[in-house]
Amino acid sequence: MQLLKSEKIIFDESIKLDSAKLIEKCEIAFTTYGILNKKKTNAILICHALTGDQFCSGVNPVTKRDGWWNILIGPGKVIDTNIYFVICSNVLGGCMGSTGPGSINPKTKKPYGLDFPVITIGDMVKVQEKLVKSLGIKKLFAVIGGSMGGMQTLEWGAKFSNRVNCIIPIATSYRHSAQNIALHEIGRQAIMADPNWSKGNYYKKKNYPKRGLAVARMIAHITYLSESALQRKFGRNLQNREFLSFNFNTEFQIESYLKHQGISFVERFDANSYLYITKAMDYFDLSIKKGGLSNIFKNSDIKFCFFSFTSDWLFPTSETKTIIKSLNSSSAMVSFVEINTDKGHDAFLLKEPEFHSTLKGFLDGQIKIMKL
Amino acid sequence: MQLLKSEKIIFDESIKLDSAKLIEKCEIAFTTYGILNKKKTNAILICHALTGDQFCSGVNPVTKRDGWWNILIGPGKVIDTNIYFVICSNVLGGCMGSTGPGSINPKTKKPYGLDFPVITIGDMVKVQEKLVKSLGIKKLFAVIGGSMGGMQTLEWGAKFSNRVNCIIPIATSYRHSAQNIALHEIGRQAIMADPNWSKGNYYKKKNYPKRGLAVARMIAHITYLSESALQRKFGRNLQNREFLSFNFNTEFQIESYLKHQGISFVERFDANSYLYITKAMDYFDLSIKKGGLSNIFKNSDIKFCFFSFTSDWLFPTSETKTIIKSLNSSSAMVSFVEINTDKGHDAFLLKEPEFHSTLKGFLDGQIKIMKL
Repeated sequence: MQLLKSEKIIFDESIKLDSAKLIEKCEIAFTTYGILNKKKTNAILICHALTGDQFCSGVNPVTKRDGWWNILIGPGKVIDTNIYFVICSNVLGGCMGSTGPGSINPKTKKPYGLDFPVITIGDMVKVQEKLVKSLGIKKLFAVIGGSMGGMQTLEWGAKFSNRVNCIIPIATSYRHSAQNIALHEIGRQAIMADPNWSKGNYYKKKNYPKRGLAVARMIAHITYLSESALQRKFGRNLQNREFLSFNFNTEFQIESYLKHQGISFVERFDANSYLYITKAMDYFDLSIKKGGLSNIFKNSDIKFCFFSFTSDWLFPTSETKTIIKSLNSSSAMVSFVEINTDKGHDAFLLKEPEFHSTLKGFLDGQIKIMKL
Repeated sequence: MQLLKSEKIIFDESIKLDSAKLIEKCEIAFTTYGILNKKKTNAILICHALTGDQFCSGVNPVTKRDGWWNILIGPGKVIDTNIYFVICSNVLGGCMGSTGPGSINPKTKKPYGLDFPVITIGDMVKVQEKLVKSLGIKKLFAVIGGSMGGMQTLEWGAKFSNRVNCIIPIATSYRHSAQNIALHEIGRQAIMADPNWSKGNYYKKKNYPKRGLAVARMIAHITYLSESALQRKFGRNLQNREFLSFNFNTEFQIESYLKHQGISFVERFDANSYLYITKAMDYFDLSIKKGGLSNIFKNSDIKFCFFSFTSDWLFPTSETKTIIKSLNSSSAMVSFVEINTDKGHDAFLLKEPEFHSTLKGFLDGQIKIMKL
């Protein structure tokens, strides 16, 4: 059994966002796993992806399914909760307990909806830092995350370089590309085209924008898998039938799978949160900060370990190589491993022995250096 | 000036579809360019892609813009209408004059809507063959097409091998892959999620499913461009502004471009036609016919010339290589050229000098062989 605590912190002071707007009484829901040591040097912050949450290990109490990184985090696992104190918080703008567009606006006593201010990856990290501080932790042992979580790890390095020992960005990029933005924008358009969206004011209504959100999820889901993984898993197989139906019902297995992804997603996610979080990702571009990519991490002591996956076309290895180049040119301590897999972007969540053993090796090395 | 004739043919006999259903009084709208020679040996059939039409050369009389392959077809061009008699017909199921879901059902005197039977690429080719026959042409000099047009060229080879001299499939595949089907299915879901779609019965109504169709078009449009072309053309550039807006209005150039693509498309295309034609593409799989890919073209005299484009991720070169392999193993006469470009799938419609000059070379060779 691992020690698991689900908690919530409410900040008394207002949070000033990158947009210059303020959030009052900001709440952040988080979960911790394991025990913080006396020196408070064994804390690892896990940053979740677009549709993730604070339940990264054990069983998610809401969905009753395994936490999204349970394969990696837990007692005796790669991120060993017998050794580390793992913290994972629901991002600002999320819908699993942290303040987001579905929360009550203290000013109006009604759900924010589109009155919620647009947030950035920087804003998400800002409140994470406040949370870490409130736990009495001066320096994190590591910040680890994949996809949008990886963006947060990089933002941690850029914003709080003396508050973190090592950073592990996985299947991510230093900026969202034109294609990434395009795919997100279509998802947002699909949500906003749903009449039940009602310009974001659907919280008190009977219907919410299920169909638009499902379409958005389906678009995104295709980008998480590689073409060859889709072909291997589904090919042109028909679902529960031998012959073509010659109608518009679900007939290919891939259609059935996608629909299932869409339908199950809308049960657990808020459409407005989807708008806000995708926007935050679109805004992310580390290369425009502090005079370019090679200057951000100059004179930093952070140890970096990047992972990318060969068949990931959402965040291709080329993006990781660009930042690696800049980091090397600014004398940063950088490791980089490209994992050979056909599982696409989703590989970071799946059983990838080479990824897991390399990550473990890197963390073990840090334990020695840090004399944990 | 080139001789251009826009016409329509109505078939007296009913058309029996692959689904075993019948279409009565089927109409096919077509355009011809140039003059059919006395021996009727200089006819080239051009097959259009998903959202194309019969106006492949000159000026499209509906949109007042250049025909979709005007760059390639016309007097003195690669497909020279001073030499060839070019025929291009709107596909069965289309919305530019050929019988489709928006046509009047002769039985009910109302638009078909979803009562229109599901069609296949084979059905499209069947009516093309009837059209060609009605023009008195026994053997086509060539059948040429890109994307879905390429599927039709292959179907011509499989179905009417003695009716065509050479076949030029471009940026296409012998079957739709799982990823292709997935992308189409999401487009269809977006259309059907639009309440204005009204289960396909929107023709007599004030509103039609504009927003759903626009989302479908935007999804498809991303697949037509390569990641690097998007980055080169748009990158993270902002549209008419210097700073981030921190709202959900259009702000990146790529968003503005995509929205424009969506909006302009719905003015010229029928949502139900989009459902039917994407379905026909999803059904396409030449490998399940006549005992596999290597047997379809056995003992055929057809000369094939395939083109693919390096950055096309919708119909990657690997798909073309698969069919080339089968054709070679069945002793077919096959040429294959992979064009190096970063323009993605759309390259087949754009200025690609190497593609154009190779295509011209192949056609010139055929002129000599055929003693045209």
